[in-house]
Amino acid sequence: MSKILVFGHLNPDTDAIGAAIAFGHLQQALGKEAEAVALGEPSEETQYALDYFQLAAPRVITQVKEETTNVMLVDHNEFQQSVSDIADLTVLAVVDHHRIANFETANPLYYRAEPVGCTSTIIAKMYKEENVEIPQAIAGIMLSAIISDTLLFKSPTCTPDDVRIANELAAIAEVNLEEYGLEMLKAGTKLSDKSVDFLLDLDAKSFTMGDKIVRVAQVNTVDLSEIFDRQAELEVKMAQLSEENHYDLFLLIATDILASDSELLVVGEPVANVEQAFQVTLVNHRAFLPGVVSRKKQVVPQLTESFNQ
Amino acid sequence: MSKILVFGHLNPDTDAIGAAIAFGHLQQALGKEAEAVALGEPSEETQYALDYFQLAAPRVITQVKEETTNVMLVDHNEFQQSVSDIADLTVLAVVDHHRIANFETANPLYYRAEPVGCTSTIIAKMYKEENVEIPQAIAGIMLSAIISDTLLFKSPTCTPDDVRIANELAAIAEVNLEEYGLEMLKAGTKLSDKSVDFLLDLDAKSFTMGDKIVRVAQVNTVDLSEIFDRQAELEVKMAQLSEENHYDLFLLIATDILASDSELLVVGEPVANVEQAFQVTLVNHRAFLPGVVSRKKQVVPQLTESFNQ
Repeated sequence: MSKILVFGHLNPDTDAIGAAIAFGHLQQALGKEAEAVALGEPSEETQYALDYFQLAAPRVITQVKEETTNVMLVDHNEFQQSVSDIADLTVLAVVDHHRIANFETANPLYYRAEPVGCTSTIIAKMYKEENVEIPQAIAGIMLSAIISDTLLFKSPTCTPDDVRIANELAAIAEVNLEEYGLEMLKAGTKLSDKSVDFLLDLDAKSFTMGDKIVRVAQVNTVDLSEIFDRQAELEVKMAQLSEENHYDLFLLIATDILASDSELLVVGEPVANVEQAFQVTLVNHRAFLPGVVSRKKQVVPQLTESFNQ
Repeated sequence: MSKILVFGHLNPDTDAIGAAIAFGHLQQALGKEAEAVALGEPSEETQYALDYFQLAAPRVITQVKEETTNVMLVDHNEFQQSVSDIADLTVLAVVDHHRIANFETANPLYYRAEPVGCTSTIIAKMYKEENVEIPQAIAGIMLSAIISDTLLFKSPTCTPDDVRIANELAAIAEVNLEEYGLEMLKAGTKLSDKSVDFLLDLDAKSFTMGDKIVRVAQVNTVDLSEIFDRQAELEVKMAQLSEENHYDLFLLIATDILASDSELLVVGEPVANVEQAFQVTLVNHRAFLPGVVSRKKQVVPQLTESFNQ
């Protein structure tokens, strides 16, 4: 079998990169010729974690088929969130914690999804099941992914499995979970010096809902005003990106990671679906979403539902 | 959470029924209110296994939503192979060993697929992972499913995992694997007294390939002439079923389980794709397929490929 590339989704977050590194290493330990790569550069949060555990950022790729046909996906399955030539490749394995949609294969494959807070939680279990020892740096990057995805266990997506595995990984990684976690999250929120292009691309995913294409970007912050001081500039850019990429609707979720709330900014149509999904009335294109921190659990299903009625 | 129904695919084979019984029992052992049901009556092979291990056939259902909204699927994922109202239900879990296609969810779920010969092989692993003891009758029906799906380990879909698990299950079930296996398989091949309607419905699945709907039925036999003595009658019925159900192409694979070969009968169009897929020329609507015993591995991918070119 030819080389296998292992990667997470476009606009990689810490789990997309960390899970790829960890699953790639596991496959190597099991005798496969696997390489972890990424579909984008690491965010500042991810870079903080990579630096802390002295790991190199994975090589960034934009297509696969000139290198190999065999891939393994982590932290995503929907083709529009994957590499550009995904439809031409053989997906040997998927490890994920998202809904399944816009995904299909011609052949049987290994697919492991669990409704937990983080893909790295599942991969850590697989190390145990396969009796493969977890190196300190790999434990560190998986721990970082869990902290990132669960916002230090505050997200409603967090499960007892995530907490248990994170504590086990913190012991192997030899870090104080709370201290390290808060430092890492804060490293990802230094946004005031960033362009609006950067903010809107940092952690953005596209979804097909009904016959609409919906773009949902999320940024974490410790100060919502850092984001909304630039609301006018953000709206211009969101409209421009929507026109260029045929998004019908563009949502920006700015999440206060200390207060565990979000402020929503919406550009495009139909706005009625957004208002119905969250039971809010948009004022100045914005709405406060108390307690909302998870795109996957508190935004996408509600919005999808409103388009399916 | 309300009751969970657990079931395999339409036209259930021994794995569809056995895996549902075994996974339903595992979920009960884990504290869930789960019931194994079926989307059809057991075949003679399956009935032989149920009788041998003194298990009741699961209740047959045709829709779910009047009972509950929560389901777990085993041995299938494609919606057209599932219960009629699958799109209205919440799929909590899938355990399967097929390709993934025409399947999507609004929410994260538990999904476990492995490219092994039988769903029951995966479920037996899950009993071990969850430290749940396998009762003798459950071991027996899972063993029967592995024997059925792998044709007593002769199918190219069979993996070392299937062989290892089957031997472990045979010990728990207290049967001689070879002797029991051959008797069970033979029980499923007493076809001479069956109607052509019965033969064409016994183990038939629909697939969307390109813009065509392709029906692929399979029957096991120890004597191919038992099937082809009724070729004219079969062709008339295949054409009639195609018209009633809008199948473009109807393939019947008659598999000699002792010789491990198959004879193919084809009704409908485009025949060219069939000839290309198997590198054969149909004569009198038939072709001999040496070494072919697996619809999943030796028929569906090849045919799908020919429609994707």
